[in-house]
Amino acid sequence: MTDILHRIVIEASPEKVYDALTNQAQLSAWWARAETEGKVGSIVSFFFGPNGEHQVEMEITDLVPNERVCWKCVGGPWVDTDAFQFTIQADERGSALQFSNSGWAEANEFFMHCNSKWGFFFTVSLKNLLEKGSGQPHPNDPNI
Amino acid sequence: MTDILHRIVIEASPEKVYDALTNQAQLSAWWARAETEGKVGSIVSFFFGPNGEHQVEMEITDLVPNERVCWKCVGGPWVDTDAFQFTIQADERGSALQFSNSGWAEANEFFMHCNSKWGFFFTVSLKNLLEKGSGQPHPNDPNI
Repeated sequence: MTDILHRIVIEASPEKVYDALTNQAQLSAWWARAETEGKVGSIVSFFFGPNGEHQVEMEITDLVPNERVCWKCVGGPWVDTDAFQFTIQADERGSALQFSNSGWAEANEFFMHCNSKWGFFFTVSLKNLLEKGSGQPHPNDPNI
Repeated sequence: MTDILHRIVIEASPEKVYDALTNQAQLSAWWARAETEGKVGSIVSFFFGPNGEHQVEMEITDLVPNERVCWKCVGGPWVDTDAFQFTIQADERGSALQFSNSGWAEANEFFMHCNSKWGFFFTVSLKNLLEKGSGQPHPNDPNI
């Protein structure tokens, strides 16, 4: 088993980072078009592909305001992995965000591709959304 | 032991990708200012920090033109990790580049930080250098 693991510092408060991970419009502004948001047990649909034809469903499994967001993929390419966990900590420059998508059976080409994509979404899209006001969500992400 | 692993497709020939990984001016145009280039056994110095005050030394341990580049960090923060390996394969859109920096003792915060940084350098800086003509090398990379 292997994990995708990232960590970035964002010049924004933990409240702003948490909002970007839970608010429908904000999620759509840095990752992919989201439909619905909600409480633990809700399922959020995200749309990928040039025309949003690939639907991914994430069940919200844990929410701790301004500290933690957890998802489990219940529809889409990551159903065989374990949790997606975002952990937010206060940092002298704003917030430190750690991310893990654990439980990959092997570090295959798709694992590597997804790891590179998350690197883009965190270091560019989410960071720019929160620091400069605009992200670069799918399908405007690099075609790697 | 754990590894940093990335994979991206670049719309450029394997020859162009190999050049970006071995030519002094090209390395300086997507990763960090490089001094010297060379053959197996040579040491390439890279400069990090706002004013280039942190020197990293990479020994070139393997070169297969248009296919593979391997380094070993012999000075700097990655001396305790194993090889840095770039593998290039022809892809219908140009080239597929796989990267590994293996042999990290643990997936600590610095591991996660470096993984996120490599995500940026590959998906944005190297890809844009080869596809659009300009990269975003250190110190102009995101301050994560």
